[in-house]
Amino acid sequence: MKSIVVKIYVKEEYIEKFKEITFYNSENSRKEPGNLRFDVIQSAENPALFFLYEIYKSDDAIAYHRATEHYQKWRDTVADMMEKPREAVQGFPICPSDESAYKSL
Amino acid sequence: MKSIVVKIYVKEEYIEKFKEITFYNSENSRKEPGNLRFDVIQSAENPALFFLYEIYKSDDAIAYHRATEHYQKWRDTVADMMEKPREAVQGFPICPSDESAYKSL
Repeated sequence: MKSIVVKIYVKEEYIEKFKEITFYNSENSRKEPGNLRFDVIQSAENPALFFLYEIYKSDDAIAYHRATEHYQKWRDTVADMMEKPREAVQGFPICPSDESAYKSL
Repeated sequence: MKSIVVKIYVKEEYIEKFKEITFYNSENSRKEPGNLRFDVIQSAENPALFFLYEIYKSDDAIAYHRATEHYQKWRDTVADMMEKPREAVQGFPICPSDESAYKSL
């Protein structure tokens, strides 16, 4: 499994539009065969701060995701909505260790 | 629901001990009645960088968590293991919106 944690600061005037296109990306990404989760988190203290929490079965599943129409539409649409460049950290989900614990129902 | 995303830089010599006590905290936290998830992520690029991804049913469930023996043991044990103060962001899981999508199996 591989994870991606993304931290995104959105320009205040784009918060609602950002949520709309990000929900579209999340919902479609969760239908990919190699995706296990795609959660969208909004900060309680700063509504312009978001996290994406993505879990994939493999590096190949991440490559598949990046080639999808929904991901590319998201990436292009949000480019001008961000307050500063987003930070993405790839990693390994190490606890729990079982793939079944990550799959969104 | 409430989320907590925690970013932690661990001193290199404590990586294995940090994983051990954090797995203990994760496994016990997932048994709390108000906990939905407690995932531990290790960065692929920097093995000393970790994220905790925690989802609770409510603020009360977070208060319950902080009063547990396993959380307090974790907090006290890792205090000297960190390279710098950890960053924790509380928020709202907004997509998916259904509680059942977050529960670890």
